[in-house]
Amino acid sequence: MDRNSPIGVFDSGIGGLTVLREITRLLPNENTIYLGDTARVPYGSKSKETVERYSFEVANFLIKHDIKLLVAACNTASAYAVPKLKRELKIPVLGVIEPGAKAAVSVTSHNKIGVIGTEGTIRSSAYCTAIKSVNPEVSTFTKACPLFVPLVEEGWANDEVTALVAERYLCDLKDSGIDTLVLGCTHYPLLKETIASVMGSAVTLIDSAASTAAEVKRILSESNMFNAKTGQAKHRFFVTDSPERFLTVGRRFFGDNLSEAELAQLTEN
Amino acid sequence: MDRNSPIGVFDSGIGGLTVLREITRLLPNENTIYLGDTARVPYGSKSKETVERYSFEVANFLIKHDIKLLVAACNTASAYAVPKLKRELKIPVLGVIEPGAKAAVSVTSHNKIGVIGTEGTIRSSAYCTAIKSVNPEVSTFTKACPLFVPLVEEGWANDEVTALVAERYLCDLKDSGIDTLVLGCTHYPLLKETIASVMGSAVTLIDSAASTAAEVKRILSESNMFNAKTGQAKHRFFVTDSPERFLTVGRRFFGDNLSEAELAQLTEN
Repeated sequence: MDRNSPIGVFDSGIGGLTVLREITRLLPNENTIYLGDTARVPYGSKSKETVERYSFEVANFLIKHDIKLLVAACNTASAYAVPKLKRELKIPVLGVIEPGAKAAVSVTSHNKIGVIGTEGTIRSSAYCTAIKSVNPEVSTFTKACPLFVPLVEEGWANDEVTALVAERYLCDLKDSGIDTLVLGCTHYPLLKETIASVMGSAVTLIDSAASTAAEVKRILSESNMFNAKTGQAKHRFFVTDSPERFLTVGRRFFGDNLSEAELAQLTEN
Repeated sequence: MDRNSPIGVFDSGIGGLTVLREITRLLPNENTIYLGDTARVPYGSKSKETVERYSFEVANFLIKHDIKLLVAACNTASAYAVPKLKRELKIPVLGVIEPGAKAAVSVTSHNKIGVIGTEGTIRSSAYCTAIKSVNPEVSTFTKACPLFVPLVEEGWANDEVTALVAERYLCDLKDSGIDTLVLGCTHYPLLKETIASVMGSAVTLIDSAASTAAEVKRILSESNMFNAKTGQAKHRFFVTDSPERFLTVGRRFFGDNLSEAELAQLTEN
């Protein structure tokens, strides 16, 4: 394993770019390779078996590109596939759920944490398990919000339709007395304003992206694996469907630096 | 080819069940095999190359089950893959676009037809091409409505959120003076009431499902391929992801007769 190798980051599509953005902000000297599995997006409505299979196919592709660390920048993949990826791969593997859970536990004052995410992430109970393993005293309240992703992808993040959907999805969480809400899907940071205005200022929103980037930094630091070369870091982007839509929608997540994406051919697991 | 063989019907997921329902209503003596490609749903936001590849993999699976006719009960697959499927397969192949286009042309009085569908279907211009090949005098007006599918799948077909989204998507079409609107996605028949209340009673809504079923009947009749055996017709259902969600959501489309679905293993094309 070479310390000058890139960090591998994957997601079902474009959402993981919010995590990549935080990693490149915190570690501007690191090279990265991102893969969005846009030919099979979304993962959030699919079964554990399917998401696990897809995640291994993607991981194998990135490993062939000689990555030194793998980040599953997708909550559903983190919930369903990261435990097995950690067991079977020879490089460090990191999901977004543990960092998000730790951040939420450190913030809650009344030990009441809410979690929102895709159907798969919520069904897996992965956040509740991770939160309770940090502090068993915490009560968790969850809600799947399947329309949030298509609303963000439509570009309606700040829109009356999205506000109405958020009111509907979040009303029970609001009544539950939580003081902390985990945004358990990489698309949701783009809805921060809308969600905050429904939940009110007494509820702290937790975005896993920043805490995941901090965890990446900690792992590289502990293993002395920071990139030794300085200069312009390289960022490569791969997708499994044609790159056009990824580039258009992806800029909402990553900014104008996203100018090129290559087509990846995955090998079936 | 055996006249007692089943009719093969496929879709990216559950939407094609609206077409299957019309086929089984019109041809209650025919056996059918349905495949929903739920591990890779949706097709509507993906590229032509990817949708074509997926459609061939699904078609090959159904052909191994000895179907006598193939129906692409998915507008995006019909737009992107049916031309090539027709050229390369040895059995009759039918999409939903030509029947829908013919039905719309036969209904319009002012030669102004609107078409709504997924991003892929609208981008392909397949409906406009099909409509103009029947009557070049007709003007067409189109709009992609990507949120309609997730709204139906959430079970919000008749809901104030969906009404608001429909108002937004359809306002330009309403101002265009169309008298006929093609529901160019198999999910949209479940939104008929909402769409009708936005468009008003002067606009006729065209649902391809019934006209596609009529076209299936015509082909079987002309080629003398009706099932010769009478008795209880058999309906098999296959999916590529685990069947649970398909069965739950699919009942909204097909009714309580949908009780069992098998897992299909597709071979890469």
